[in-house]
Amino acid sequence: MEKSCESPNITSEDCSAMLLAVGDALYAVGGKWKLRVIIGLSGDNKRFNELKRIIPGISARVLSNELKELEMNGFVKRIVYADASPVMVEYELTDYSSTLKDVVRSLSEWGTTHRERIRQIK
Amino acid sequence: MEKSCESPNITSEDCSAMLLAVGDALYAVGGKWKLRVIIGLSGDNKRFNELKRIIPGISARVLSNELKELEMNGFVKRIVYADASPVMVEYELTDYSSTLKDVVRSLSEWGTTHRERIRQIK
Repeated sequence: MEKSCESPNITSEDCSAMLLAVGDALYAVGGKWKLRVIIGLSGDNKRFNELKRIIPGISARVLSNELKELEMNGFVKRIVYADASPVMVEYELTDYSSTLKDVVRSLSEWGTTHRERIRQIK
Repeated sequence: MEKSCESPNITSEDCSAMLLAVGDALYAVGGKWKLRVIIGLSGDNKRFNELKRIIPGISARVLSNELKELEMNGFVKRIVYADASPVMVEYELTDYSSTLKDVVRSLSEWGTTHRERIRQIK
């Protein structure tokens, strides 16, 4: 007896396709920090230490790794100002990162209402 | 020099609030499996082994842990049919899990276009 996972709750999309797609998305930008680094870089290019200050709780080692992975995957660009002295490095969001707008918005909205719910339960 | 992270890319929401909210959301339903378990349970209650079959790559140990956490946090209900022989256990999504609809939809849509992009690059 095989049950489908089409859903009145979530959406009527085909469940396997959705499992695959959400898996792909989480593989690329899941984890504790990637989306937060992207949010931190929104608006303005930032230097490593500026970015680290903006994201509460992230360590230099983790931020450095996350930036490398985000750069490799086309979400972030590393800009080296070689003429500056000392050499200055900034990080910038690529256009591609803006495709995550809806993901960030929905998570942010949900996180806000979830926090409110937890507060009411406690 | 403090830079803001308000963004033309992501949204105009205040950046610290967004970092906090997305952090809360990822804390509750982030990680590799939670949203996939919720998608797997969409539509129909399922028994443990049915659910395990639907979600590619999940181990029994991990699924068991994820279900416990999802139950503790109010996303999943464990229903015990004590009259059945042997006793039957099913898992069901709570109404609260449907508040994740937008999150699942946006991740699913983004994952689909991201996969398409990766395919074109390769």
